[in-house]
Amino acid sequence: MTVLFTISNITEKQETHLKARFPNQNFVFLKDKKLIPQYIEEAEIFVTYGKDVTEELLEQAKNLKWIQVLAAGVDPLPFDAIKKNNILVTNVRGIHKIPMSEYAISMILSVYRKERDLLLYQLDKHWNRTLSFGEVTGKTMIVLGTGSIGQEVARLAKAFRMKTIGVSRSGRDKEHFDEVYSVTHLHSVLDKGDFIVSVLPSTKETRYLLKDEHFDLMRDDAIFLNMGRGDLVKTETLVRAVQEEKIGHLILDVFEEEPLAADSPLWKNERVTITPHIAAISDRYLERALGIFKENMNLYEDRQLEEMLNVIDLDRGY
Amino acid sequence: MTVLFTISNITEKQETHLKARFPNQNFVFLKDKKLIPQYIEEAEIFVTYGKDVTEELLEQAKNLKWIQVLAAGVDPLPFDAIKKNNILVTNVRGIHKIPMSEYAISMILSVYRKERDLLLYQLDKHWNRTLSFGEVTGKTMIVLGTGSIGQEVARLAKAFRMKTIGVSRSGRDKEHFDEVYSVTHLHSVLDKGDFIVSVLPSTKETRYLLKDEHFDLMRDDAIFLNMGRGDLVKTETLVRAVQEEKIGHLILDVFEEEPLAADSPLWKNERVTITPHIAAISDRYLERALGIFKENMNLYEDRQLEEMLNVIDLDRGY
Repeated sequence: MTVLFTISNITEKQETHLKARFPNQNFVFLKDKKLIPQYIEEAEIFVTYGKDVTEELLEQAKNLKWIQVLAAGVDPLPFDAIKKNNILVTNVRGIHKIPMSEYAISMILSVYRKERDLLLYQLDKHWNRTLSFGEVTGKTMIVLGTGSIGQEVARLAKAFRMKTIGVSRSGRDKEHFDEVYSVTHLHSVLDKGDFIVSVLPSTKETRYLLKDEHFDLMRDDAIFLNMGRGDLVKTETLVRAVQEEKIGHLILDVFEEEPLAADSPLWKNERVTITPHIAAISDRYLERALGIFKENMNLYEDRQLEEMLNVIDLDRGY
Repeated sequence: MTVLFTISNITEKQETHLKARFPNQNFVFLKDKKLIPQYIEEAEIFVTYGKDVTEELLEQAKNLKWIQVLAAGVDPLPFDAIKKNNILVTNVRGIHKIPMSEYAISMILSVYRKERDLLLYQLDKHWNRTLSFGEVTGKTMIVLGTGSIGQEVARLAKAFRMKTIGVSRSGRDKEHFDEVYSVTHLHSVLDKGDFIVSVLPSTKETRYLLKDEHFDLMRDDAIFLNMGRGDLVKTETLVRAVQEEKIGHLILDVFEEEPLAADSPLWKNERVTITPHIAAISDRYLERALGIFKENMNLYEDRQLEEMLNVIDLDRGY
């Protein structure tokens, strides 16, 4: 069967390795996305970062049985068309936990250790010892989302002797969290956090979950960090939160609209750290993502579909 | 007896608390160091950050029995004069471990997460997703110095699943280190480290311990971080190490001469992070330092001198 890859940064070595590992399959590795229509009809398996899966394309995908998305977010996918064609979708959730948890800890430390000021002093050759520094040790971190990424962030937070509070749909206890609350208790939790970190995916329930009232409840010295999905909160709500000093600092890797508009007041605010959706980027990403694909490919060849990793529930959207 | 304080940033509340806790003592809190000579003769106890203890001052300090230095580094002290006058010296080693270990992890993450580039992009309102990022997880960290600060850095490194190698005078095993070597084996250890972190104090043995040959042995992508003392290595050796690309990045908080000269080529090198001797600064510093003083003061009042915390060996210098 034909396995169509539209993973532009795959190496020749990785391609050779896949062909050797699965010699019965016909691998097609496309670097040029314009060629997808030529191959999509024969493809039974489609390995993609996700954005090239369109409703239009699926109409031609007569033989497509399985889409392996090499990303965690599957929100760009046309779920209705996928359901109609009875296509299995798997993602690579779980492999983002290391770079994303390093991002979260790094960025929060960066605010506390005033790395912005220190860098600007260095660029100015200015030896200035007048800064004061807080400690992240012993603080309280709230993590919105208690899946694999949220748990890994909480695990590192515990190493810094923080108190960790999780918020999830179920409110079920999870490892590395001192307390977990259901999202229905969000209002009563928010003022406990020195740091509020969101790793929530984009779903019907999380879209615009955080509103002005939530930022009103946060401490005025709290750091809010979003590395989940940008549609958790409207950009205008974030602008108000920081301009009206409802909170101390925003660390934003994802935005309602990406790229963030050049005229957004967020860019120039000293109490806002903006990164261009890079929290999950890692030089070990593709190696780990292909590891998940290979495990799934073995199971698919053996027709053990119910054992496959990270199967997406098309109704829930994750 | 008179207890002379030259701690300029002590709060009124802390002064009141000390007087209430030790009602039999005559506390003198000086903000203006010019007044020290007026009080040094009557002082039995001198609480200082260290730099105002001079040989000249000690000649007038006829009643001085104990100097409590509220710093870890006691290298500015005139040891010969102190020994001659038979004065007890204690420091506050141990309390720096939290801010310093946060500094080390923060700065190493900052290099791996390319926070310099990210900040400059933000200042330029530039949404640039082309950066690649490494992970600190799973790397190997060598820590020069396995005392309380070194152990705390290693503890956090273990949380990031690093391999930790300590180097100390004795080479004795210490908690949080996978391996510890004696400094006589330094040559054979250095090429194992992705990160080489020095927390060494300034002593006869550590002064200019690291030479060009040591940087030749390090990996060319290694990060060298010094937050111990600047006289561990000559500035010219560091300049050669980075200019000749013997190593990947320097993170320097301490320098052979402080402040670092404005014409040093280190300031403008993108592969050098310079901070102005701030690794140990913490808004909880003085509270912790006074905690050590209070414990020692209790023991001193009870004449249990041999129980006192952090007594300096005047021959070893630490």
